[in-house]
Amino acid sequence: MATDPKYLREFACFRGLSENQLNAIAEISSAVCYPAGYELFKDGSPGDRLYFLLKGQVEVFYEIGEAGQVRVDVVTGEEIVGCSTLVDPYVYNATERCLTDIEVIEIDAEALRKMMREDYSLGFAIQEQLIKVLLDRIVNFRLES
Amino acid sequence: MATDPKYLREFACFRGLSENQLNAIAEISSAVCYPAGYELFKDGSPGDRLYFLLKGQVEVFYEIGEAGQVRVDVVTGEEIVGCSTLVDPYVYNATERCLTDIEVIEIDAEALRKMMREDYSLGFAIQEQLIKVLLDRIVNFRLES
Repeated sequence: MATDPKYLREFACFRGLSENQLNAIAEISSAVCYPAGYELFKDGSPGDRLYFLLKGQVEVFYEIGEAGQVRVDVVTGEEIVGCSTLVDPYVYNATERCLTDIEVIEIDAEALRKMMREDYSLGFAIQEQLIKVLLDRIVNFRLES
Repeated sequence: MATDPKYLREFACFRGLSENQLNAIAEISSAVCYPAGYELFKDGSPGDRLYFLLKGQVEVFYEIGEAGQVRVDVVTGEEIVGCSTLVDPYVYNATERCLTDIEVIEIDAEALRKMMREDYSLGFAIQEQLIKVLLDRIVNFRLES
């Protein structure tokens, strides 16, 4: 498992990190392709992987009472998939499945969390960028609604 | 400026902080009431205050091209208002105005940011909770749409 740090540098989330920090994250990352229909993860299962979507589309499903599994969103373009793996209790808060063939950078979330706790400046920087990404997402939801 | 730390403890964002950390934040916070119609802040202005809404409703407006100021959301209940003050470039990303009389805990955002950078464990804990709050907000947007 290891990818080229240049892929990571393209993601807003890793802006402001040093070369050494990026290299360390690259060590626990890999570039992977998944076919349409593949389930990346299930709602409530342990958050062991964080995904940076490079190409393709991912469907987001929630389990909603009697209605069962309901599609609530489609994620596309360069996006982070599985953000809930970075916050306690570190489980996925949705089921996500490939709508098309996809290319992702897949990061070992447990190793990343460990890294973020052992190097607070790294953890703080990643969290700050993640907050920006989420605030932008909220702007989009508000504009769409 | 100073408020009782017990008000802060009620907010998810401050969970996991020590007594000392909560007391330090209480020192830069105050409980304030604003009347209906009062503008808390303007889109693009320096993010000098972070608000924890205790009671009342706040309207959120975006500046949208030729349409001008458009109401995109109403925030109610116990909520954080002005999250963008915690991330670079530390400016408000919306105009927000009281729809009803409101009660808030108002925090000096510049002092809080300084505190978060000087004590990374504090900064890390607050950011982690903020990420949770934003993820919950996204769940709600997805369910509403």
